[in-house]
Amino acid sequence: MWRINKMSLLRQKANQMIKESLEAVMPDRAVEKALENFQGSGGRTILVAAGKAAWQMAAAAVRVLGHVDDGIVITKYDHVKGEIPGVECREAGHPVPDENSFAATEKALEKVRGLEETDTVIFLLSGGGSALFEKPLISGEELQDITKQLLSCGADIVEMNTIRKRLSGVKGGRFALACMPARVYAIVLSDILGDPLDMIASGPAYPDSSTCEQANSIIEKYHLHLSEQAQALMQKETPKNLTNVSTQITGSVRELCAASMKAALKLGFEPVLLTDELCCEAKEAGSMMASILRTHAKDKKPLCFVAGGETVVHLTGKGKGGRNQELALSAAPGIAGLTNACVFSVGSDGTDGPTDAAGGYVDGETMDRLKEKGLDVFSVLQNNDAYTALEAAGGLIITGPTGTNVNDVTVALLDSIL
Amino acid sequence: MWRINKMSLLRQKANQMIKESLEAVMPDRAVEKALENFQGSGGRTILVAAGKAAWQMAAAAVRVLGHVDDGIVITKYDHVKGEIPGVECREAGHPVPDENSFAATEKALEKVRGLEETDTVIFLLSGGGSALFEKPLISGEELQDITKQLLSCGADIVEMNTIRKRLSGVKGGRFALACMPARVYAIVLSDILGDPLDMIASGPAYPDSSTCEQANSIIEKYHLHLSEQAQALMQKETPKNLTNVSTQITGSVRELCAASMKAALKLGFEPVLLTDELCCEAKEAGSMMASILRTHAKDKKPLCFVAGGETVVHLTGKGKGGRNQELALSAAPGIAGLTNACVFSVGSDGTDGPTDAAGGYVDGETMDRLKEKGLDVFSVLQNNDAYTALEAAGGLIITGPTGTNVNDVTVALLDSIL
Repeated sequence: MWRINKMSLLRQKANQMIKESLEAVMPDRAVEKALENFQGSGGRTILVAAGKAAWQMAAAAVRVLGHVDDGIVITKYDHVKGEIPGVECREAGHPVPDENSFAATEKALEKVRGLEETDTVIFLLSGGGSALFEKPLISGEELQDITKQLLSCGADIVEMNTIRKRLSGVKGGRFALACMPARVYAIVLSDILGDPLDMIASGPAYPDSSTCEQANSIIEKYHLHLSEQAQALMQKETPKNLTNVSTQITGSVRELCAASMKAALKLGFEPVLLTDELCCEAKEAGSMMASILRTHAKDKKPLCFVAGGETVVHLTGKGKGGRNQELALSAAPGIAGLTNACVFSVGSDGTDGPTDAAGGYVDGETMDRLKEKGLDVFSVLQNNDAYTALEAAGGLIITGPTGTNVNDVTVALLDSIL
Repeated sequence: MWRINKMSLLRQKANQMIKESLEAVMPDRAVEKALENFQGSGGRTILVAAGKAAWQMAAAAVRVLGHVDDGIVITKYDHVKGEIPGVECREAGHPVPDENSFAATEKALEKVRGLEETDTVIFLLSGGGSALFEKPLISGEELQDITKQLLSCGADIVEMNTIRKRLSGVKGGRFALACMPARVYAIVLSDILGDPLDMIASGPAYPDSSTCEQANSIIEKYHLHLSEQAQALMQKETPKNLTNVSTQITGSVRELCAASMKAALKLGFEPVLLTDELCCEAKEAGSMMASILRTHAKDKKPLCFVAGGETVVHLTGKGKGGRNQELALSAAPGIAGLTNACVFSVGSDGTDGPTDAAGGYVDGETMDRLKEKGLDVFSVLQNNDAYTALEAAGGLIITGPTGTNVNDVTVALLDSIL
């Protein structure tokens, strides 16, 4: 009886942490925080929002700012949730850009044309912006053909971007250039580890570090076939210096980790950040989190280890699950019997793998529960079937789609022993 | 030039830490520490040492104690390095016990027979003791047959030990029982994570928690075939309570980690113990150590993360390497370019896998060096060929066989930026 209460208390604390962590990185909260101290320059305020979270970010921005003079939202189909005063809402293709992407992006460029130095463009960027915010400078067919050539020759992502930025009217800093002389205030919800600003949506408002010389040597290296028009574009340099831009990364896995640590502290745990760039195999990360807990279980103080990032899963079976569920389940054998330990892992978008769960939770009793149900954790993992096992053990974390995407957070808790 | 100096400084610090960490867990140092405050009870002192490090441990004990009244060393072939005053040195079969194991163990039992309450048995145990220190109570053939049955029916290690302890005259606490009424002072060099004293050499001087009832239900569960003699042994209970024994775990991965942390502190690093029970896949642990370094590289203070344990390697190729070399090499891509970071991993026995290296060292320049040599780290890892790559990059750690075995230690260092 005592153990059950102790465990459910741990679960409650985990749930509280999950709630507070996710709230902190919701697009609206993120935008609110970023605009807290925003000061315009006295002129007009134009809002341009692109990405999967564009609508939420734009709605929050208008709420905080009171009003904008003009604006546009470019998001995925079915992602516009209502009208936003003064803002035109458009939907377009993702992950493959379509005519609606191009038309909406053209419209955004129109809105920032002819601005003055005292005007401000609030540029809200989130994951998916690369497809949704695009103006190809060559035909769609040739763009597809060049992409195919790059993929088949084995070019790496940096090489691909060096070429593609030069074929775009908005990428590689060119959108910010188009806003000149107005100021651009970019608020970025990052879905890439380490927040490489030139990679997120290919950096429409970020100085590009690649050069024409590099582009030419890539073409030579892989013997790429380009039309005359595309060849001419390769000789046109991208902006190296954008004095009119300031950027705020507001939702990111770093903030997700910080929010988890803050929530842990409030609950009496001493938070320890392991990493915010976790990228190894999910089940090995689970094993390591369990090892960490086993060692520190003897410390007899409430501890909270946080690891943010995005793990990978190599499929060996046909079960149901996701990287967060697999990570959590993999920690179960290592913490079996520890009455004060738990591990949970959550995807900030609320959908872990092709499931309706956001992630998984395991504690010292999980192995017993699985045994009762006749489930062997190693076979389950072999079959990538973490969902089924966590469901049986009461370890699924369900939040529903959250509307944000700033990777995942994994937490290992050691409560004090009562 | 500056970077080269900086890096070689980091390597020097790593070498210093490796040296000090290994010294602290050498069998002689470990025994010296354990005997520092040893007080006999006024009677005779008998020394019994079993395991791969038995000779070193016994030699150190006699050196510290000045003399012993009688004693025996039972170690692997070619592991006796000279005479020890008052101690008989025997060599025997490992990992499979042979007639010399049985005869030497019988001799040890003779030496502890008929002791008085004021006498003391100094019992020195190290890895390999399970095969070297054994007195089967049934014929060798039947012991082999039962072991085969247990292996083929899928019994787990706890079930196997429950049966095997009852077939032995020294395991499961029975050696300590045979020493009664003399006191037993057991000094254990642990090679199993978590130091389970009933598992190390099957616990000759540790109370056994398994019961006859459990043994019988295992026999029933797997339909094991036992001779009448063996069946009778199943009904004979192992000691549950040994009031004459005190145990000191002296060399263990925990002490290896503690020594690394102490060495780090001396060099100006803030040491952080992650775990002393690391057991995941080597290359994933390497990736995670690199993630931890990348995140904390921004902290701008000298940090040292320590993880002890024993990782595993799943072979996918036919190259040359070991788990420590593979772990270190796997960290190289993640810390590429960080001028103040390194990761190293060392097996305390000095022989990592089937190689002459103890482990591997990588830093922020390793990837460049591999590139210069035309080596791709991912193909190298796929081929389990870490030795070749580390050799090319100057990253092999060579110590020679150390004479101890308390698992491995992995260290991730972040030096201050000069």
